[in-house]
Amino acid sequence: MDEFMQMAINEARNSLAEGGIPIGSVLVKNGELIARGHNKRVQENNPILHGEMDCLNNAGRVGSYRDTVIYSTLMPCFMCAGTIVQFKIPKVIVGESKTFSGAREFMESHGVEVIDLDLAECIEMMEEFIREKPGLWNEDIMEL
Amino acid sequence: MDEFMQMAINEARNSLAEGGIPIGSVLVKNGELIARGHNKRVQENNPILHGEMDCLNNAGRVGSYRDTVIYSTLMPCFMCAGTIVQFKIPKVIVGESKTFSGAREFMESHGVEVIDLDLAECIEMMEEFIREKPGLWNEDIMEL
Repeated sequence: MDEFMQMAINEARNSLAEGGIPIGSVLVKNGELIARGHNKRVQENNPILHGEMDCLNNAGRVGSYRDTVIYSTLMPCFMCAGTIVQFKIPKVIVGESKTFSGAREFMESHGVEVIDLDLAECIEMMEEFIREKPGLWNEDIMEL
Repeated sequence: MDEFMQMAINEARNSLAEGGIPIGSVLVKNGELIARGHNKRVQENNPILHGEMDCLNNAGRVGSYRDTVIYSTLMPCFMCAGTIVQFKIPKVIVGESKTFSGAREFMESHGVEVIDLDLAECIEMMEEFIREKPGLWNEDIMEL
């Protein structure tokens, strides 16, 4: 497996161990790790820190994102997809989109390349989480 | 003037006084103030804390956003607009869109009502800021 996706999965598992939502993300620039992050809705009582947002938060001000790739264990929602479009991140590699279809078409319509690895490990992690904590998951994707 | 837009403008002026980018935001639920915030790119070295994002961050987990209105001194960018769509915030009231046209059509295409007050005070505040710190402004909207 891609080492960066493995890091994103590790971030997701760290979040789960903290009682949080198991979605992780990694930002890579010119082939080097810049930052990693995970969903912190539970841990920091924070609705905007999805995995991708926490990762970009942790990266700080990096100048242009033109040579970056963002990894996420799950297809980005409209918040994270809008951020990817606004920041002009050209490429997104996701673990899966089976448990949440997200905003793939929106990103692609703005020229973002989206690669879905469709990983059984990511699907199983989310399916188990959604089964155990459906209310928390629905809150995170605002199906309220 | 609408008292909530006045609060958003005050937030923007507070940010400017801190050496930051003068964009402020307020979240209102059922007619009551829930949170306020302002751009913190400079203050917290944070690229995701646009005014609207900082406001939603400060609001914490509020459950459904269906009865909320978000105010911003400037038309939301794709990050903030994507968040508004994802969070299902039904109404956005902005101070102006002359200095930055933002993602109005994207929000409207997802059923968000967008009202642009076209306020001279907001336009002048942004025009002066952009004239004085064009590099910082271009970084904030990722025109790099």
